[in-house]
Amino acid sequence: MRVMMMKKIINRINASKSIVIMPHLKPDGDAVGSSLALAKGLLKLNKKVKIISLDEISYELKFLDFHDFWVSSLNIDEYDLIISLDSSDIDRLKDRIEFLVKPIINIDHHKTNTFFGELNFVDSEASATGEIIYNLLIEMNVDFDTEISEDLYTAIATDTGNFMYSNTTSITHEIIAKLMKNNIDVTEISRNLFQNIPLKKFIFDAKVLDQVEFYNNNQVGIVTISHEIRNTYGCKNTDNIVEAIRNIEGVEISVVIVEKENEVKISMRSKSDFDVAEIAVNHGGGGHKNAAGFGMATTLEAAKKLILEELDNVYARIG
Amino acid sequence: MRVMMMKKIINRINASKSIVIMPHLKPDGDAVGSSLALAKGLLKLNKKVKIISLDEISYELKFLDFHDFWVSSLNIDEYDLIISLDSSDIDRLKDRIEFLVKPIINIDHHKTNTFFGELNFVDSEASATGEIIYNLLIEMNVDFDTEISEDLYTAIATDTGNFMYSNTTSITHEIIAKLMKNNIDVTEISRNLFQNIPLKKFIFDAKVLDQVEFYNNNQVGIVTISHEIRNTYGCKNTDNIVEAIRNIEGVEISVVIVEKENEVKISMRSKSDFDVAEIAVNHGGGGHKNAAGFGMATTLEAAKKLILEELDNVYARIG
Repeated sequence: MRVMMMKKIINRINASKSIVIMPHLKPDGDAVGSSLALAKGLLKLNKKVKIISLDEISYELKFLDFHDFWVSSLNIDEYDLIISLDSSDIDRLKDRIEFLVKPIINIDHHKTNTFFGELNFVDSEASATGEIIYNLLIEMNVDFDTEISEDLYTAIATDTGNFMYSNTTSITHEIIAKLMKNNIDVTEISRNLFQNIPLKKFIFDAKVLDQVEFYNNNQVGIVTISHEIRNTYGCKNTDNIVEAIRNIEGVEISVVIVEKENEVKISMRSKSDFDVAEIAVNHGGGGHKNAAGFGMATTLEAAKKLILEELDNVYARIG
Repeated sequence: MRVMMMKKIINRINASKSIVIMPHLKPDGDAVGSSLALAKGLLKLNKKVKIISLDEISYELKFLDFHDFWVSSLNIDEYDLIISLDSSDIDRLKDRIEFLVKPIINIDHHKTNTFFGELNFVDSEASATGEIIYNLLIEMNVDFDTEISEDLYTAIATDTGNFMYSNTTSITHEIIAKLMKNNIDVTEISRNLFQNIPLKKFIFDAKVLDQVEFYNNNQVGIVTISHEIRNTYGCKNTDNIVEAIRNIEGVEISVVIVEKENEVKISMRSKSDFDVAEIAVNHGGGGHKNAAGFGMATTLEAAKKLILEELDNVYARIG
């Protein structure tokens, strides 16, 4: 089935002259890397090709070579085909709704993909859309140069959390082994992707991490983040904070409580068997066993008190 | 040459009945993982085998299965062969000098290896000694089970900085692809190796990183670490601190000044073309262009003032 669909897609691309690639909104390393690799591959096949995105490129991906592929507007009448990359549903393209007036090929690796394209290649066993683009370019006999290899390395390395997430497979490493034969500088790419933190984020993280408090025999790590400090440093994302606390030896539950405009958001992570979704669901939130959260119209201190009481109850129960 | 030496080593192992494996002192992930994989492989070949080390296992490696291979003493008369793993010279085994009374096979990947064994297999193109042990076990027709695969994954992942260092090659990923076919839990291994920080180290790091000061238009990040705070948290290693500061976007030079008993130690890192070895050499120290250091009998504040003056001079010079 997959082989047949791949052939259909290649035939459709071969019949096309000018192609617009659409990564999902707020494109991550996989969306950006896959789009660039495909654009460069299609150019080698003499297609007219652009990538359209309204978002600014994330700072850690700016080192990639974008040439003039990446645009925020174009005359869609000049194109005959759209290839959507790494989007699970059409909503993830909706910021560019006025361009969605040509046939869409939908290439993705998300299980939840809604098959919104005219042709759909969805492989949820692929660690990244980059893996699928690798295979597509191989099938189309595209010559893999250093840039294409770096783009695909970026796509795969970011979506696998640098080969640490459970989506990483033997095939992932086989593809990386082949990409590495094309003279790519893995140290430089890795430094850009994983070792490149904005100054404000560094200062914010250090201040917050220095405030973490430990309870229940150091098995619970908890920190509150005020509206003021978030605004001062302009840091919206605190996922890395709750993960950093979870990563402490002996910590079983990590809690970050963030003050927003009219409520506080409680984000929790746990190791092994401790179910934080249970607590979240009790308060109208959701998530998975090891990662869950909820919102509440209260103060930081009151939320912290509540969480600590709930955890005390759990610890009393599990002994 | 290498093929012949590998064959000689295999013949020597086949002729042996009881083997002591010696990883280098303060064994890292490569030394520990390679030793365990080799021990388990040799046991499958019906050898009597122990690994001797006087050091405590580093906390991030304790998740590996040591069984009863790992010992701190043994009766060397009961063994007929020593295999040294990952040691560049005999000094790295000298804490166990009383056991060095049998023929030594020296297997290593360090360029600086002194060929101290009776037989020496040194491959400086291997990213880790684990790569060499992988090939050795393949040549000896050892069946790769999950444990051996996890041991070798650990060896290679740690010595390549999770595949980010420049020693990582296409062959590295090919080997990892093969190891991953043996049902290993990469997420669990990675969490143990790279996302598992002792509580005291977490608190120490947060306190120190919250004290970093920035100079020269935020291109210089510098922090001092007092004797007192190091003692309070028992943290000797500050390499990750100087690296964390170097990893800030826009920072070109990172400096950590550590107060020791009778002197201060200045450790510097730089990006791209900025040569910190020059400054280190001027003060009787050494290192490479992007990583250098020196010691000085002075105070933290005086050392900081000195470094900032030197950097001001450099910045005045390079404009």
